[in-house]
Formats: sequence, C-alpha cells, structure tokens
Amino acid sequence: MISIPKGTKDVTPYESYKWHYVEDTARRVAATFGYSEIRTPTFEHTELFLRGVGETTDIVNKEMYTFLDKGNRSMTLKCEGTAGVARSFIENGIGALPQPTKMYYITPVFRYERPQSGRLREHHQFGVELYGSTSPFADAEVILLAKRLIETLGITELELNLNSIGCGTCRKGYNAALKDYFRARAEELCPVCRERLDKNPLRILDCKEERCAAIAKDAPVVTDYLCDDCRTHFEALQTILKNEGVSFAVNPKIVRGLDYYTGTVFEFISTSIGAKGTVCGGGRYNRLVEEVGGKPTPAVGFGMGLERLIMVLEALGLSLGSPETPAVYVAPLSEALRGQAFSLVGKLRLAGVSADTDLADRSFKAQMKYANKKGYRYLIALGEDELRSGTVQLKEMASGTERAVAIVDLPKTLGEL
Amino acid sequence: MISIPKGTKDVTPYESYKWHYVEDTARRVAATFGYSEIRTPTFEHTELFLRGVGETTDIVNKEMYTFLDKGNRSMTLKCEGTAGVARSFIENGIGALPQPTKMYYITPVFRYERPQSGRLREHHQFGVELYGSTSPFADAEVILLAKRLIETLGITELELNLNSIGCGTCRKGYNAALKDYFRARAEELCPVCRERLDKNPLRILDCKEERCAAIAKDAPVVTDYLCDDCRTHFEALQTILKNEGVSFAVNPKIVRGLDYYTGTVFEFISTSIGAKGTVCGGGRYNRLVEEVGGKPTPAVGFGMGLERLIMVLEALGLSLGSPETPAVYVAPLSEALRGQAFSLVGKLRLAGVSADTDLADRSFKAQMKYANKKGYRYLIALGEDELRSGTVQLKEMASGTERAVAIVDLPKTLGEL
Repeated sequence: MISIPKGTKDVTPYESYKWHYVEDTARRVAATFGYSEIRTPTFEHTELFLRGVGETTDIVNKEMYTFLDKGNRSMTLKCEGTAGVARSFIENGIGALPQPTKMYYITPVFRYERPQSGRLREHHQFGVELYGSTSPFADAEVILLAKRLIETLGITELELNLNSIGCGTCRKGYNAALKDYFRARAEELCPVCRERLDKNPLRILDCKEERCAAIAKDAPVVTDYLCDDCRTHFEALQTILKNEGVSFAVNPKIVRGLDYYTGTVFEFISTSIGAKGTVCGGGRYNRLVEEVGGKPTPAVGFGMGLERLIMVLEALGLSLGSPETPAVYVAPLSEALRGQAFSLVGKLRLAGVSADTDLADRSFKAQMKYANKKGYRYLIALGEDELRSGTVQLKEMASGTERAVAIVDLPKTLGEL
Repeated sequence: MISIPKGTKDVTPYESYKWHYVEDTARRVAATFGYSEIRTPTFEHTELFLRGVGETTDIVNKEMYTFLDKGNRSMTLKCEGTAGVARSFIENGIGALPQPTKMYYITPVFRYERPQSGRLREHHQFGVELYGSTSPFADAEVILLAKRLIETLGITELELNLNSIGCGTCRKGYNAALKDYFRARAEELCPVCRERLDKNPLRILDCKEERCAAIAKDAPVVTDYLCDDCRTHFEALQTILKNEGVSFAVNPKIVRGLDYYTGTVFEFISTSIGAKGTVCGGGRYNRLVEEVGGKPTPAVGFGMGLERLIMVLEALGLSLGSPETPAVYVAPLSEALRGQAFSLVGKLRLAGVSADTDLADRSFKAQMKYANKKGYRYLIALGEDELRSGTVQLKEMASGTERAVAIVDLPKTLGEL
C-alpha cells in the first residue's frame, strides 16, 4: 500500500463540489471587479523566489521544494503565487499594453512545513494582482475584492488590519531605528534573528520564537518612520475605505512574511468563535517587478488559502454548495434491455440531462437499492412494456410520485425540470 | 531577467478564457455522464509511478521529475493522472461505497521531454476514471464521453482506433510469441529494446527507433492471442459502439505507452488537414488498483491533453469562447470625482455587474481612449451635473447610442442588459 505524501491531501469525488463552490464564487467576484485569470508553471527557476520572496524569509530559507532537473537547473515548486505572475508579466510584455493589468490566480502552493503546525505542504491559493497603478484606489479595490469574496461566502464576523511598511526611503530610517533597538538586546535574540539584525531587521518582528516576540513587542513602529509620499498614500487609502463604509484597524505590527512588500499591507481575520484566524493577507509590492528583472511597475494584491477558507466555512456551518448527483437513473428491467437503457441514457446526456444506468450487472431490485443510496432525483424503469408503448413512468424519488412521459419527450421534459 | 523554465508555458490573462471554455465544457459533459471531480497532490511517492506506470516505460525511465524532499523521501511530480487516482481510491476507502465510482480530473502533468519534440514539460490533462465495473458498457461509456466532449468542442473529423491488448492470461501466450519473433532479430533492435525483450516485449511495439518500428511492423498481433473472456468483452464493446452509431477501426497496433493497460485500449485521432494527431487515449486497467496495493478493482478511463486540444481547435478555427472584458467603464470627469466613480463602480459590482473605473490618474480624454481600447460594452461619464441630477447617460460603445438612466437604477438596468 502506497500512501499519500505527508502533508498533502486528496479532494475526493464526494467533496470536490465544495471546491467548485468556493472557486466559482472567487472567479465570479473577480470577474465583476474586472480581473482575468493568469496561469504560470508549477515550478520556476529557484532564482526567481530568491530574488522575489527574499533570501532572509522563512519560506526561502526553510520551506522551499527545490530540486535539480535532468538538465541540472535548480527549480523550485511555487512557494507563493506572486513571483511567477511578476515573471510572466515581464516575459510576456504585458506591461506594454494599456495599464493597469488586473489578474487573478488559483494555484497550488508548496511549502515544506512542519506537520505539527497543522499546515499542508501542498495547499491552494486564490490571489489577485493589480499591476501598473500607484493609486490608493487600487489598494482599496483589492481590499474590497477580498472583503466581497469573504462576505459573499457568508463570513461576516471579520476584522481588517491595515498597515503601511513604507518604501525604500522610509525603510532606511526605520531599519536604522530597528537595528539600534535590537542591537542593544542582541544577545537575547535567537541565532536566526541575530543574523537578521544586519541583513533585514524587519524580519525579527515576524519571528515565531517567544523570546524574540517579547523583545519585538516594544520595538519602534514603522508608521512613525513613513516618508511624506507613503504617509499621504496610506491616509488616502484610509479615507477611501471609510467612504466605502469599510471598518478597519491600523495595526503597525503587521509586516507579512515576504520581503517584497512595500507600503500597504493588510490582513483579514475571521473573528467568529471556533473559526478565528487570518483568511487573507496582501499588500503593495512596488519593487517586485524590478527586482525580478522588469521595468519599475507598481503592484498590489493578496493571497487567500483555499483549504483555510473551506475550513472556516465548515466551522461556521455555512453553505458549500451541494454534491453533484446526476438527475436520472434509468433501470433496465432485465439483462436483455441493458443496451436500450444505455441508449436512452445517451440521448438524455446529449440533451444536457445528467443520467446514469446500470454498469454493474445488478438485478432490478439491486438497482433500486443502488439508486436510492446514490440519491438520484428521478428514476425510470425500462421494460418490454415501456418500449412497446413508447411511454415510461418518470418517478420522483423524494415524493414517490410518478407521471407518464413519452420516451421521445424525455430529453425535453427532463431538460426543463 | 529570469525566464520561464524551458518546456513550460504561461497562460496570460488575455488567453485564459480559452482554457475556461474548454475546461467548463469538459466539466459540463463529465457531469451529464455522472462523473465527479477528484483531485490528488501534484507529487506522489516515486514508488507509485514505478509500480503503476511501469518500470520499463519511457515515462518512468527517462521522463520523470523525481527529487528528494527535505525528509529524504523520493517524490515525483505527477507524470500522468491515473496512478494518483488509484492511490486515492484505495487510501480513502472509496471502494467500500456502492460501485461504480465515476471520477474526472483536470491536472498538470510533468514529463522531461526533449524540447525538439514540441511537447511541453508541464502540460495539462483532462481525464476520466470509471472504477468498479467490468461491463463492456463501462468501456463504451468512457469512449462515448471522450467523443461527446471532442464533438461538443466542434471537432468532427475524428477517427476512433480500438484494440484489446488482453489480460494476464492472454499476455502470457502473446508475450511468448513476441519473444520468439523478436529474439530471431534481436541483434537488429536498439539496445533499449534488447533489454525489453526479456522484461516486457510489448514495449518494443511502442519504440520510436526506426529500425525497431520496421521490425515490429510484421510482429504477431495481440488480437490473435486473446482468451475467451477478453475476446467476448471486446466483441461486446464493438456491438455496443455499433448500436450507438459510433464508427471505429480495430487497430491491433495500438498498445499505449503505459504498462497498466489490460484489455481495451483506444485512441481518438483528429483527421482534419492541419490538425492531425491523437487527441485522446485510454483503455482498461483492471490490475492497476491491485498493483498499487488495493483490492482487485476493474477500471477504465482516458486522458486528454488540453494544450493539444486547444491547438487543434485553433488550427481548425473553432470557437474558444471570448475574452472576459468587464461590461461598464465609469469615467469621472475630474480628479475630484474619482471617489464618486469608485463608489458607483462598487455598487454595480455588488449587483453582479462587471465594472471598472480609472486607477491610473488619467485625464477624461485619456480615459475615453483607454475604454475604447479595452473594449468595454458601456460607458458612463460621471460629472458634477450627473451627480446633481442623479441621472447619467449610459452609452453603448459599439453603436454610440446613449440613454438616460437614474444612478440609483443603474445596478438593476445594467444587470438586465
């Protein structure tokens, strides 16, 4: 017996309807906001993530699925959705078209997480990417899109945390302040953070070690170091959100675990009891396209874990659609009529009616039991009499009511039910 | 500048509608046939493919993306869609539910192909899997499903090649006949086929080397070695297909490049000039589930390459849907009205109307140019006058005709257009 790889999950045929429900909702909401899907390969040159996500992040340091292909090139399974989109935006010359470009993706994401954290090593993300606009309206749009999707799915107890982590200019002053602050207590930091101190002190704020978190609690906050442009942008975004009736809290502790963020960062947190936790994170990354080799291009977006989202919806007892059982079961009364039943089912399917018949050589009685268990909506028993008269009894399984329908009319009648 | 990995492709936001068209059609057809989606991880333990696909196949020998994960386990990116489904069927206990189980998948598939062959290293497949039925009606059903999908997409010049490569019993006699035949000319075979001669002589029929193909041309054919059960099954399948009006050719040379096939194998070939080639391949694999550790479970299915399918549709000039441009563009007449335009767009989106407004600080004139280029269906110019009167001119871009609509009525009016 060969088992599934640790930290990965199957979606069985009996639960995939939940995924369709969430993904269809995401696609529909994205479409009303004017976003089109982009798809990038499952793996990229490792270099892309080193440069895009950042060499000092946990993801790149510990969690990447990196391998050499048969041509000895270092490849890495997508560890997040944004870097591949940036690479694709550049390589396909999308920036030469009228901007902005509004894109969404639904993609598997691979991170070698410790299994005890309850996280999957392959999970799935819905995300949006808005390239080519510096406007705070763009930040507001992606925030509203995330909110609309989460609310459309029925999650209402929701908190939006907002921050700005500034651009390169602000970061210089802020990094210096952080270095001063942490250097004084360097010996108390974990070994990783001691290294971060010089390379990227912002990452210390993100450390999961208790001792580092305790020290970080009183560290200087980034909002005190924003340059005029970043402050103006952040204030404009807050005004737009207020005008749109969106409540939020500015939380200067949010920094996000990826190096590409500049300016706005945000998180949506489900606050319902039993379903607490971040359901969406995003922000601005105005330097990313340049970082991976393109022309300077402002960008803003978010990512949303689909497994996490489905978990929250289930915890809250919210609708996730319903199983996709075919509408009709056609039961041949005898072995000799299998071909006739099969043909009738073929005609129904051609008319767009979902239909099944026996494929397991079951007796008529056993077919009845099977059809009941599977939950078909309608049942048609097909015998010599029915074929001779050209009329069958269409039985509604739930009510047990029957009505006579001419066989030739079945595709039309069932198509309208 | 970091490039896309060799042999992989992006789907840009400007062409993803083609994928939606093909995938939605496949999902719809699969649903009418009673198939539900199954999703399995992107990688599996390498052992699964060695046992499932077969150690003497080209795929396993030369083309797998195999790597060690951080726990030193050998993993392989999915090189075909069926083995993972078989593993999942066993592991999730799906066989304990009423059978048959009808599943479909849409998945990336990874094979390290030589780039000159024009094949992708990551391509995508739609496939179906029918487990738990030995009935020839099951073989017929998956063949009809493939045909229905291909024809629904508009491909009509289509050839169905059918064969049976027999079960373990037939294979004994046939393998012996093949060994006798090839052994006599062993020195003329390529080194790989000389090895295959003992391990799996059937694979020689599949060799791409010219000299091997020339010898294989006159090799014994499998249909002469079928046992009674396999012959009866194959004949019953042919009768069903004839009854359903499906034309086909029995082609005893089809063996398929995967070891798991037993009994029925088939291929659909597009015969249109300029779009020749196999668009679908499948068959029966009654030993696969057992091979990978489950209870004996009959199975039949097919796989269809989506890139190949889209290529054929494009070559034939067939419809692939249309780009998903939002319906309405709301253009603020001045900078001061951006927020009002943004709010109006928000209300339209909430009503399910796809809408955009300016995010690039364009002048009104530049917005007109932009909206024309992007191809919005409707345009609304929003100025002080419109806000004061509560009425806008809704302009249909194609005809240039305008009509007055109250702002409060816009969501409803546009929702109905």
